[in-house]
Amino acid sequence: MKKKVVLAYSGGLDTSYCVIYLTRDLGLEVHSVLVNTGGFSDEELKQVEKRAYDMGVTSHRTVDEVENYYESSIKYLIFGNVLKNATYPLSVSAERVSQATAIAKYAKEINADFVAHGSTGAGNDQVRFDMIFNILIPEVAIITPIRDMQLSREEEIAYLQKHGVEFNAEKAKYSINKGIWGTSVGGKETLTSDQTLPEEAWPTPITSTEAQKVVIEFKQGEPVALNGVQLKPTEVIQKLQKIAQPYGIGRDIHVGDTIIGIKGRVGFEAAAPIIIIKAHHTLEKHTLTKWQLSWKDQLAAFYGNWMHEGQFHDPVMRDIEAFLSNSQEFVNGKVIVELNPHRFQIIGIESENDLMSNKFGSYGEMNKSWTADDVKGFSKIFGNQVMIWHKINKGEN
Amino acid sequence: MKKKVVLAYSGGLDTSYCVIYLTRDLGLEVHSVLVNTGGFSDEELKQVEKRAYDMGVTSHRTVDEVENYYESSIKYLIFGNVLKNATYPLSVSAERVSQATAIAKYAKEINADFVAHGSTGAGNDQVRFDMIFNILIPEVAIITPIRDMQLSREEEIAYLQKHGVEFNAEKAKYSINKGIWGTSVGGKETLTSDQTLPEEAWPTPITSTEAQKVVIEFKQGEPVALNGVQLKPTEVIQKLQKIAQPYGIGRDIHVGDTIIGIKGRVGFEAAAPIIIIKAHHTLEKHTLTKWQLSWKDQLAAFYGNWMHEGQFHDPVMRDIEAFLSNSQEFVNGKVIVELNPHRFQIIGIESENDLMSNKFGSYGEMNKSWTADDVKGFSKIFGNQVMIWHKINKGEN
Amino acid sequence: MKKKVVLAYSGGLDTSYCVIYLTRDLGLEVHSVLVNTGGFSDEELKQVEKRAYDMGVTSHRTVDEVENYYESSIKYLIFGNVLKNATYPLSVSAERVSQATAIAKYAKEINADFVAHGSTGAGNDQVRFDMIFNILIPEVAIITPIRDMQLSREEEIAYLQKHGVEFNAEKAKYSINKGIWGTSVGGKETLTSDQTLPEEAWPTPITSTEAQKVVIEFKQGEPVALNGVQLKPTEVIQKLQKIAQPYGIGRDIHVGDTIIGIKGRVGFEAAAPIIIIKAHHTLEKHTLTKWQLSWKDQLAAFYGNWMHEGQFHDPVMRDIEAFLSNSQEFVNGKVIVELNPHRFQIIGIESENDLMSNKFGSYGEMNKSWTADDVKGFSKIFGNQVMIWHKINKGEN
Amino acid sequence: MKKKVVLAYSGGLDTSYCVIYLTRDLGLEVHSVLVNTGGFSDEELKQVEKRAYDMGVTSHRTVDEVENYYESSIKYLIFGNVLKNATYPLSVSAERVSQATAIAKYAKEINADFVAHGSTGAGNDQVRFDMIFNILIPEVAIITPIRDMQLSREEEIAYLQKHGVEFNAEKAKYSINKGIWGTSVGGKETLTSDQTLPEEAWPTPITSTEAQKVVIEFKQGEPVALNGVQLKPTEVIQKLQKIAQPYGIGRDIHVGDTIIGIKGRVGFEAAAPIIIIKAHHTLEKHTLTKWQLSWKDQLAAFYGNWMHEGQFHDPVMRDIEAFLSNSQEFVNGKVIVELNPHRFQIIGIESENDLMSNKFGSYGEMNKSWTADDVKGFSKIFGNQVMIWHKINKGEN
Repeated sequence: MKKKVVLAYSGGLDTSYCVIYLTRDLGLEVHSVLVNTGGFSDEELKQVEKRAYDMGVTSHRTVDEVENYYESSIKYLIFGNVLKNATYPLSVSAERVSQATAIAKYAKEINADFVAHGSTGAGNDQVRFDMIFNILIPEVAIITPIRDMQLSREEEIAYLQKHGVEFNAEKAKYSINKGIWGTSVGGKETLTSDQTLPEEAWPTPITSTEAQKVVIEFKQGEPVALNGVQLKPTEVIQKLQKIAQPYGIGRDIHVGDTIIGIKGRVGFEAAAPIIIIKAHHTLEKHTLTKWQLSWKDQLAAFYGNWMHEGQFHDPVMRDIEAFLSNSQEFVNGKVIVELNPHRFQIIGIESENDLMSNKFGSYGEMNKSWTADDVKGFSKIFGNQVMIWHKINKGEN
Repeated sequence: MKKKVVLAYSGGLDTSYCVIYLTRDLGLEVHSVLVNTGGFSDEELKQVEKRAYDMGVTSHRTVDEVENYYESSIKYLIFGNVLKNATYPLSVSAERVSQATAIAKYAKEINADFVAHGSTGAGNDQVRFDMIFNILIPEVAIITPIRDMQLSREEEIAYLQKHGVEFNAEKAKYSINKGIWGTSVGGKETLTSDQTLPEEAWPTPITSTEAQKVVIEFKQGEPVALNGVQLKPTEVIQKLQKIAQPYGIGRDIHVGDTIIGIKGRVGFEAAAPIIIIKAHHTLEKHTLTKWQLSWKDQLAAFYGNWMHEGQFHDPVMRDIEAFLSNSQEFVNGKVIVELNPHRFQIIGIESENDLMSNKFGSYGEMNKSWTADDVKGFSKIFGNQVMIWHKINKGEN
Repeated sequence: MKKKVVLAYSGGLDTSYCVIYLTRDLGLEVHSVLVNTGGFSDEELKQVEKRAYDMGVTSHRTVDEVENYYESSIKYLIFGNVLKNATYPLSVSAERVSQATAIAKYAKEINADFVAHGSTGAGNDQVRFDMIFNILIPEVAIITPIRDMQLSREEEIAYLQKHGVEFNAEKAKYSINKGIWGTSVGGKETLTSDQTLPEEAWPTPITSTEAQKVVIEFKQGEPVALNGVQLKPTEVIQKLQKIAQPYGIGRDIHVGDTIIGIKGRVGFEAAAPIIIIKAHHTLEKHTLTKWQLSWKDQLAAFYGNWMHEGQFHDPVMRDIEAFLSNSQEFVNGKVIVELNPHRFQIIGIESENDLMSNKFGSYGEMNKSWTADDVKGFSKIFGNQVMIWHKINKGEN
Repeated sequence: MKKKVVLAYSGGLDTSYCVIYLTRDLGLEVHSVLVNTGGFSDEELKQVEKRAYDMGVTSHRTVDEVENYYESSIKYLIFGNVLKNATYPLSVSAERVSQATAIAKYAKEINADFVAHGSTGAGNDQVRFDMIFNILIPEVAIITPIRDMQLSREEEIAYLQKHGVEFNAEKAKYSINKGIWGTSVGGKETLTSDQTLPEEAWPTPITSTEAQKVVIEFKQGEPVALNGVQLKPTEVIQKLQKIAQPYGIGRDIHVGDTIIGIKGRVGFEAAAPIIIIKAHHTLEKHTLTKWQLSWKDQLAAFYGNWMHEGQFHDPVMRDIEAFLSNSQEFVNGKVIVELNPHRFQIIGIESENDLMSNKFGSYGEMNKSWTADDVKGFSKIFGNQVMIWHKINKGEN
């Protein structure tokens, strides 16, 4: 009886190579799986499935992971206003974690002997896949043909051709990865330090030029309505993305540390993620206390970095999520945002939990709930220790 | 013999009231002082001085604090990429600290019996002035007529008129505070949560519409050249501000926690500070290690908040500055920035200390200095503890 | 009709003064309340009540807060292994918060017009009481006779005598504060920096000299059994305290920052708190991941400091508690402790969730689940960035 | 011409095996090196050297690293009061880093082709050696015979015998590692979770039973005198160790995370390190501000962990050292410590920089530099935000 391998399959060249290689060269029974995190249309999913069967997989499974991805990851990235290095919404990083986790679950379900992925030896994804498989299904051996054999594009195409599979020999100028939490764009300029992506590299051209306002409503930190229409959070994201991306909003380049120690640079367009995070953060500035904001920042920065490094299954992540969820109890209200080509602006917020309430004194206006003497006393005590320090260490006597 | 009071004097209504009040009602010898942190032209400084003498001060002193302000504060705000709540470059907060410190020094120098400031009882400035005076000159008593008497604008004008001083009765719609590290704009809309400032509220109208590139050069973290011309850091800031502010860059609204516990909202325009911080941060992403970036973020967030709260003289601030300075040794290179109306974009960087060097493997391309097996081993060990945790706590057996 | 005041009453000189002063001089209806956090026996509580009525209070209420104190505070101090400045279990700090909160609740319940406490102007307690009352019952005015009038002991006794209340004129050499989470001892030596408390100052003399072992069992981080007997956590604490305090364990001196900026020094004996925290921490070292331990430390240090400063009602404290609770899911097992005069020693632990399982390789012994090559690969990648950094910034070429 | 290998040689079985193996089986020219970090007497060093030459090394070098070890590592461990997991002074971890660094330097100096160490595949040391060699001498290949061949003790002895080298076949019951910053003890009980080391396992028996006081003087955070005698810091450590270790002070068991993900347990005796750290910490509590203490704790915890993981050469470590050094400016004074069998006690401190100065009010005594009203004002403002939060989110209206 043939041994079973679960293959993370996307329909691209590398994973197509894997199908043939695993079937023919290794003699395995290939069960391909595509975990959709929002980057594939139904049409595309069907094509991928057809291609898989055409190439000879024993079974192909499409896992719709969008809702689960939101519930397990995106929700917390919003709660934490997570932008890696103050820039990147972790579009790909979080997605890979969800995909690897879903694949591990599937491999367990069908009792696979092996699990295979098409990562190369140069990036983050190999570590995320390897490590999550090691953690969740340590008894299942990992196969990574592309990384192990270091094949060139041409070699892969030739191999496929030899086995009767035709593949377009032309390489796309940019490598694109699409998901509900953003689309990454890598290639050419991103391999240098001193150039940015040209207009034509961006997947979504700029077609909207008229300013418009949108209103995002949050309930306990989650986006629950857009322009007054109640929606599932994933629908808010997708609908807002459709409205805002044609403005060219949320395009940027992320420079950062890969898990393997080198620096990497990647472009991304992520209008909805960026707008939602900034809107959510503004609402929090109005509704959370100073130390809630401060600790959320610290924990969320770590959460984002640790997620990026594929360490999603460390139980500390669940502890941080407990903190973040608890902090959102009163993060309720509407955020008004104005969209313009290449940029957006938070106009303001409306919230019943707004701590900037006129009832308690306005900044710069005379107040009601404390006196001049209260502040004098406060200033004296607030500076007391440093006054003593200066007297003792910097005083003349 | 009359007792001496040093008065922080700006030429405005509140501090003009103080001159007369301190002289006539309290019978003090008034020594007015204006600490210029980049917000006054020579012409304006002369006018302020003339007005002070006209109203009867015994002496007036102008302290040019710009270079010292840069050296003691702005430099570290750049090193730390400090944007309070991910938004505000601390334009006013840092300035007040410098001013209060310079005034305390002056009061000591001339052996003043009192020190006076014109702050109201509603904002942050009163705490910053009070506390820094308490710390540096605890033996000098503080007088704050405006806060103590809670006078209205009309009462102040009437009082001045009674003493022969004419003052324009019309109140400016927005209160503006200008300095080298940004200009704040408060009033009307900023007193609400749901509105933003209208175009006419911004001090600098948008007059530049053609895209242009600028190149900022950093040496050990400090901006030392603009478009190839070597300059003092303060000159880079001022020159860049002149170029970039007419694009409307760096306009935003900051919502945050005041020292006295209420939430406050204030507009600001700060093209040069925002561009310099983003450029500097990008250069750091290329030149610092992962943990340098991480710790800098944490320390700088605290540094900014503590500065904002007027706690500049806490010796922990010197300790953090030592960390920040040390981290800048290799933050050298050029950053190319493109300016456009309302926005700017970092194009890229050039640096001899760029860790994203092709010599050590490129992200997404096949590498030279490690093997597929190295990463496999890494992934196994990197996930080892969490693998064990799952086996023990989530395993079937 | 007389106005009502709720008075925090302990039976001591200061609060006895307050009873008379509030009744006679201010003409208020006094409702005294004692919140027991474990420091009073039933007999003592009865005496305090009798004394209160004798002096003329309208009503006296004893609130048994022990269980609530454990549930709302002590539990989290255990979860966080909180020792302020690596020393002090916050015996008094946490207790005051519970007491002030219970008093505020009572004042609200009986619709009091005023709330009074007997704190002096020199310590932390005044801030804790004032602030918690300001937060929870801002509409109820605070009266603090002792602080306001700065009365000496002699003046208070004379005043009481004048009103027919006899009080022992002799002052205790040390001021003692007892509660379930430890007993503080202040006076004479603790007012200096260079002396420690003499043997006779400690409330519990050393009477146990034979070594003995105790076994504390934890379930989800809470102490649930002692020497094999299932108990409520508060019973574990009290029973262990009875066993361990006669060894002189947990005696120490805490030096730290008061809320008002000066440094303070106080002795304490807290055998059970110290043993439980160390036992719990050891169990965590065996059952939590590296980053759980690391983040718990950071959050707990802040939690302890913020509790110490009376800021228990900041919602960030609830967020931290959510983190801490979540982290305890697998902190289960027994900890064996040996008691000896003046010291104790953790012998070891037994836990089904122990991550130090021989199944996954033993430290210092040859392992089974990874190879020499895995570690070589790990070491290469783990040091990759710093290797690059050295090559670029310290290399010869 | 033969290729050169530098071998980290200790005189033990594993590294003796390496000498023969590298010489005979690999045909290399062996240059053995022993880096003394305080664990070897002159006599022992001579014996090791003799044995090396007897076995046929081309050269043997002894590097006295004690002073350099102190200057580059121990000093900062003191400044940071570093006790890993609140327990372990990093005796072995810091030492390995110093040794690996010195060996890398030596390999560079003599232009070695290879560098070899005798680590097994089960512990932390292999990673520290591998990684530091990869970082500092990436062009020099690493050879690790013991790890690669997974040899048993018996196989090594047989191999040596075959090559004419006699080795005592009896394995010591405990594996001991000695250095100036403490001695580790591993074996038998430390391989379990529930047992502690027996009396006979500790290298230094308890022979001192009379209580005695010692006075340690610190200057800018460094220990510079013992009992009034000015000494080099390394001499203070060594002299104090000689006095205190015979009391059995500083014996404990550390449980923690190894770099490779498993939990490890190791005993240690480190009287001088533990006493110096506690004494230094106490002095800091008297001389540093609240936020200096807080940030030092956070940075030092990371510093210790990162050192433990061998990441000493990450430049972030230099940045943290800059912070720590700067913080020590006023950490001056004497600390009085009482030694007793199994325990010690900090009696108190004397310092000109003591912030607990009676001049500024004593804790619990009536103060001079602030009033009751100052504290009332402080309490109101300090709790203002949380008051507003409760009013808005928990209020009845």
